[in-house]
Amino acid sequence: MNQTISFITLGVTDLARSRAFYKALGWRESSASQEAIAFYQAGSVAFALFQREALAEDASVASSGSGFSGFTLAHNVPSESAVLATLEEAVSAGATLVRAADKVFWGGFRGYFADPDGFLWEVCFNPFVALDADGFVKLS
Amino acid sequence: MNQTISFITLGVTDLARSRAFYKALGWRESSASQEAIAFYQAGSVAFALFQREALAEDASVASSGSGFSGFTLAHNVPSESAVLATLEEAVSAGATLVRAADKVFWGGFRGYFADPDGFLWEVCFNPFVALDADGFVKLS
Repeated sequence: MNQTISFITLGVTDLARSRAFYKALGWRESSASQEAIAFYQAGSVAFALFQREALAEDASVASSGSGFSGFTLAHNVPSESAVLATLEEAVSAGATLVRAADKVFWGGFRGYFADPDGFLWEVCFNPFVALDADGFVKLS
Repeated sequence: MNQTISFITLGVTDLARSRAFYKALGWRESSASQEAIAFYQAGSVAFALFQREALAEDASVASSGSGFSGFTLAHNVPSESAVLATLEEAVSAGATLVRAADKVFWGGFRGYFADPDGFLWEVCFNPFVALDADGFVKLS
């Protein structure tokens, strides 16, 4: 299996609310979006929002679940001050601050916010990882 | 907030088992990997495996959770036969087949497998979405 991820799809409880949140964050939907699904091109991966029950049904699993979803998304930025500014921006857009930014033992600086469904976004400055001109991480 | 996703990190219960699974799938770790975290460059996004408790602790949330994790990853391929072959490859690598491949109402053909922690991967042929030379989706 090739080392590619084509889509990350979040199953949300209120699609209109999630669309409004990501719009307020500054994200722009792809013209491929439809009424029932929102798509956002984010570099080589497409981010999608879909109703939770519909997503579970497509995978043919039960939609119930609670607690920690077991994963995080990260948005890396080029400085500590950009971490603070981005977290503030997210809160202004309606996010919940989950962890205020602080230093990590390995030398990074990060905080977390939750989107309207509680999906966790880390906003991180990692001094050991370069960002390309478009802001994407390129590991060695 | 720029429209970028830097990392997708899965919180796994047995890091060695997950590393072995993704290796068997054909994925190669970045040299940035460390004992406690595995990194894989997947286009413009980095995929990471980290212990679930450690991930929850980093986000400062409780690690308990059960049921549907609320999200899926998708791996798009260029044909229906590639969907079948990729699902077979995943099962050979130790994945659980969650949904055998079948036609979707919108014209696609897809199935789902679960990784060792139950994280869901859709393997999909979407005749309406082009893949670039590296196999990545580019939405309009």
